[in-house]
Amino acid sequence: MRYLMTFSYDGSNFYGYQVQNNKRTVQGEIENCLTKINGNKKVRIVGSGRTDRGVHAMGQRAHFDFKEIDLNKLQTSLNKLLPLDVYVQKIEKVEDDFHARFDVVKKEYIYKINMGEYNPLKYKYEYQLNKKLDVDKMKEASKYLIGEHNFKAFTKTDEEKDDYVRIIYDIDFEIKNNILTIKFVGSGFLRYMVRNIVGLFVEIGLAKANSNVAKAILDSCDRTKGFKTFSPSGLYLNKVYY
Amino acid sequence: MRYLMTFSYDGSNFYGYQVQNNKRTVQGEIENCLTKINGNKKVRIVGSGRTDRGVHAMGQRAHFDFKEIDLNKLQTSLNKLLPLDVYVQKIEKVEDDFHARFDVVKKEYIYKINMGEYNPLKYKYEYQLNKKLDVDKMKEASKYLIGEHNFKAFTKTDEEKDDYVRIIYDIDFEIKNNILTIKFVGSGFLRYMVRNIVGLFVEIGLAKANSNVAKAILDSCDRTKGFKTFSPSGLYLNKVYY
Repeated sequence: MRYLMTFSYDGSNFYGYQVQNNKRTVQGEIENCLTKINGNKKVRIVGSGRTDRGVHAMGQRAHFDFKEIDLNKLQTSLNKLLPLDVYVQKIEKVEDDFHARFDVVKKEYIYKINMGEYNPLKYKYEYQLNKKLDVDKMKEASKYLIGEHNFKAFTKTDEEKDDYVRIIYDIDFEIKNNILTIKFVGSGFLRYMVRNIVGLFVEIGLAKANSNVAKAILDSCDRTKGFKTFSPSGLYLNKVYY
Repeated sequence: MRYLMTFSYDGSNFYGYQVQNNKRTVQGEIENCLTKINGNKKVRIVGSGRTDRGVHAMGQRAHFDFKEIDLNKLQTSLNKLLPLDVYVQKIEKVEDDFHARFDVVKKEYIYKINMGEYNPLKYKYEYQLNKKLDVDKMKEASKYLIGEHNFKAFTKTDEEKDDYVRIIYDIDFEIKNNILTIKFVGSGFLRYMVRNIVGLFVEIGLAKANSNVAKAILDSCDRTKGFKTFSPSGLYLNKVYY
């Protein structure tokens, strides 16, 4: 039987989502618990994609194969075994050929920036910029990125891919109590893509670059033309759509 | 010269506010940094009161004596030296006989309870009850506690005091996105007092006790008549008034 799970985690104390030897990872923790429930017969999970060290998730998803079982009971047992910083929200049955990575239709990430005073309770959960941003200028810049583009200029420098083309459907800006939340909805995102776009936006929001620089960097297909990769701490994988 | 500082901290990784040998404490961290700035001549700070292990603060206050100095520069140097989980919001000059503990007029604490689904990103910042509460019943109960009372029934069992009388000016309930925030304003609070009152309120909110039980427990002056001491993780020292 194939199942799809939806789960959330605090990325602060993980070496990222993906299993690595002798490191604490989200995938590793979930697989260990599922394996225990399975009488110590190894269970693997296949995520919608990895998240880097320090990145959080509100709605990560993964599929796995398991015997026929009461899904509420499985969810309860799993959450009892899991550490406090990971939580399974839902487990549902899917078709045998469903694939959590290949079948992704759309993903939503959010990035949080504190434009107000430094908050020592939030430094792992919001980027502490502690400066006002010109959000209208950032919105202008975002227009250049929406649509289908080659995003090579916004990926990790040493990331070799066959295909750097992705679609960004929407970039939305919202301010509440000095916290700017930028929401990205796209077909998929390259490694560091959101954090590099945020680096560009902040440069523009601080008036250190004009908004049309966004187009110049995008067109260059050259990461070295861009700005700082922003901290993982403000980044959340919010939703994965199938 | 005497100064008053206002500061915030994430209590998660401290053994409480008050200095203890070989333990990481908020007071200890601040004193170490002030001492460094003072050319390694020991500086002591006197807090408005201690907060227990795991309790957070948005507006804790303390006084200290220091040479005449540019207060903006002192604040900046201090925040550079301090770890990421403590932040000094303000330093102001006060009278030589000002005392951060004895001169307190009013304190405000808040307690946060998540009545919605478990959130692995917030277990250190909101109590994860993950159950609906009957907040109207809790409000009814709170009426019995407002005013000047002997709060011995709500303090730490082995806490010997001369005086258990305190005034609660207001208890306020607010719900936003399934997070219940209970705000307590009082002349001062005994050790564990807020956490023990929250324990009572939750019992009533879950319909395991009637709201008039609040009066019976208060009148008993006996801690053993009460309920669970709630977790420090949902508790914040919000404001101290002089």
